[in-house]
Amino acid sequence: MPSPLPRKRIVIVGAGFGGMAAVKALKGANADITLVDRTNHHLFQPLLYQVATAALSPADIATATRALLRRYKHTTVLMAEVESADADRRIVHLADAPDLPYDYLILATGAAYSFFGHDEWAKHAQVLKTLTDALSIRERLLSAFEWAEECGNPDMIRRLLTFVVVGGGPTGVEMAGTIAELARSTLAWDFKNIDPRSARIVLCEAGSRVLSAFPQKLLDYAAAALNKLGVEVHLNEAVNEIDANGLLLGETRIEAANVIWCAGTEARPAADWLGANAARNRGVKTAPNCSVPGHPEIFAIGDVASFDAGEGAALPGLAPVAKQQGDYVGRLLKARIAGQPEPGAFRYKDLGTMAIIGRSHAIADFGRFTLTGFPAWLAWSLVHLMLLVDFRSRVVVYVNWSWAFFTYGRGARLLTGVARLKRPQWLRISAQE
Amino acid sequence: MPSPLPRKRIVIVGAGFGGMAAVKALKGANADITLVDRTNHHLFQPLLYQVATAALSPADIATATRALLRRYKHTTVLMAEVESADADRRIVHLADAPDLPYDYLILATGAAYSFFGHDEWAKHAQVLKTLTDALSIRERLLSAFEWAEECGNPDMIRRLLTFVVVGGGPTGVEMAGTIAELARSTLAWDFKNIDPRSARIVLCEAGSRVLSAFPQKLLDYAAAALNKLGVEVHLNEAVNEIDANGLLLGETRIEAANVIWCAGTEARPAADWLGANAARNRGVKTAPNCSVPGHPEIFAIGDVASFDAGEGAALPGLAPVAKQQGDYVGRLLKARIAGQPEPGAFRYKDLGTMAIIGRSHAIADFGRFTLTGFPAWLAWSLVHLMLLVDFRSRVVVYVNWSWAFFTYGRGARLLTGVARLKRPQWLRISAQE
Repeated sequence: MPSPLPRKRIVIVGAGFGGMAAVKALKGANADITLVDRTNHHLFQPLLYQVATAALSPADIATATRALLRRYKHTTVLMAEVESADADRRIVHLADAPDLPYDYLILATGAAYSFFGHDEWAKHAQVLKTLTDALSIRERLLSAFEWAEECGNPDMIRRLLTFVVVGGGPTGVEMAGTIAELARSTLAWDFKNIDPRSARIVLCEAGSRVLSAFPQKLLDYAAAALNKLGVEVHLNEAVNEIDANGLLLGETRIEAANVIWCAGTEARPAADWLGANAARNRGVKTAPNCSVPGHPEIFAIGDVASFDAGEGAALPGLAPVAKQQGDYVGRLLKARIAGQPEPGAFRYKDLGTMAIIGRSHAIADFGRFTLTGFPAWLAWSLVHLMLLVDFRSRVVVYVNWSWAFFTYGRGARLLTGVARLKRPQWLRISAQE
Repeated sequence: MPSPLPRKRIVIVGAGFGGMAAVKALKGANADITLVDRTNHHLFQPLLYQVATAALSPADIATATRALLRRYKHTTVLMAEVESADADRRIVHLADAPDLPYDYLILATGAAYSFFGHDEWAKHAQVLKTLTDALSIRERLLSAFEWAEECGNPDMIRRLLTFVVVGGGPTGVEMAGTIAELARSTLAWDFKNIDPRSARIVLCEAGSRVLSAFPQKLLDYAAAALNKLGVEVHLNEAVNEIDANGLLLGETRIEAANVIWCAGTEARPAADWLGANAARNRGVKTAPNCSVPGHPEIFAIGDVASFDAGEGAALPGLAPVAKQQGDYVGRLLKARIAGQPEPGAFRYKDLGTMAIIGRSHAIADFGRFTLTGFPAWLAWSLVHLMLLVDFRSRVVVYVNWSWAFFTYGRGARLLTGVARLKRPQWLRISAQE
């Protein structure tokens, strides 16, 4: 009987859909896995806009990563910021924590919003990537109505109740639609001095149509739905300026206290760490097996990767892509470590795309067939419920949480404010020693 | 038929138990009511420690005030900070919002924690009064374990996993007990490099016993329960210093990354606004009908008031006191406005007091009889459930929230970060005009 092989060290950066899928696929591999994320939770991003619009609580769409992976004996979860990676020495450098040596590295760091070189706009426009972003948007949305109720100045009220969403992709459409519902129904009867239904919701898209990834016939429905919700759609106009009081859309000035940026994204700086080739969105260009050319031991998956989908196009930044790539790379490494044949090139299985416009309007494109209206909304709900169940039985979790008051359950283990929380000085110093 | 009397203007400051009870008792009165609070939500404070210890989400114990009062046609809710009150001109001055003239003023501003003149300790010790406080404590508690997992330094791990609760009142005991449970059970199996069960939880009380308001026989039980939970209780020792690394307890130095202050409270500065007589805790001394001597049109209720309970003692700062006083003052004003005889002096009906020590230990003192253990815990749960139901059918709300994912309900309309959120400059300037 041969002596057991030494265990390999695998470092996974990012606890999103990609990183989690990789951990799961690696279960049982002869390896010690370290999963690093700057937050302590796995976030169900597709529903983040509902936290931003006060429909859901953070605990409803996020769960402590280490609680999800409790039973993964050989997986260590670290909450830390990755500063850089040394591909030659095979070491990941963490901020304020010891280095992580690795045999295999999986980069699943995702993407961030980009202001197309106008970083000064970030002061005045909210983005929606993290729980902290969502809570900050929620605070601004709700504060706008509160301040309008008390300020007693018509111009200010108009400015406070003008909400501009920049970017006509699925997130932008979801945000605009839900803000419209917040104003027209949820808050409609709660104020004495203002009429929340008079709020102006503007969705602006520099391109010629919103939801441009969908076929035209669905877009007509989407346009009608947005119109029905009272969302003002501006097409073919770029944002030229954003300041504290509003924005310049084309040549038109819009006074708005609330600007939400759902436009361009770019991959997080993993490519810089490796000196690897990056695509236009700074995504790491990968080989057909998701590895980084020249580094068969390093893989990039999900939004941080730029995977050639043929005709020079890259795979879109969608949750299913990240999940499938994470699962693929996990299986590949498990096979490689066991000395078994590795799977062939990664192939993305497109399960269709959906977008929801407010409470009961949605569109779904399953390639072979499409859906609109209630059937599409039903499909959207079921798919998202299945996705939730997929990474943990969330229906059950939901009921558990509803009884947390009686059972002292722990549904809310999230550090939504971790970005604001500074480490004590003594911890920072010594960690660098 | 006589011409209708002019409607009176009533301003209520504070949307806690006292202020809300007053609004409800005033329903149907011939008056326009304005309820001012610095937050947008009514908070169920008795369960705040469970948010701080990640057992519950903010949305579970707080609800948008204006949603609760939606059906109160003549009540306007304002989210604003009160700067001062002009008792002679009968005007309340708001920060960044127009003045509020009143015929009757009800002060229900509550109390804040006091560091006994050592305000510099506030930088290093967390207090627990608001949702923001609770989230900040939660972040610190959970971060401590995360940082310990990754720092790899035994001294630091010990310091990170030492939690000191200052103050042996009900809140301090609840915090210490729940932190102990968090470490010994909830988090026990989630870490690879540390053993959360090794956490050190210290409860220190300057007096000779914890929960001193309770009869001795209950205290023996409480002491045993704390001991069983592994909470280290220090009596008869005052805190002499708190810094970033820990605290000085008597002459003993304790290295601790987490210090939670549940010791002294003092009334918010309403007395200063009025130049009224204040008690030692800065509470507004009130007449037997809760009015402020010399100002029959001004009332002070709840923690901000100092109501003589005989033998020079004031009524304790408990939710039932605030509720009963709010209800009393509401009925009194309703009668006065209607020209009917006013109720006699306020009398506090003591329904008993309870304290919970961890998940399944509690003590209850109902005067005629006392409870410990599971019966007391059951009583505690039922009473708090009833109190929740009292201000809104929270059981139902709970189930609603559990299905928010499907129904797009709005259970989470809270500005937990409002304290951090600055108003836009243009709004601040103009409001002062």
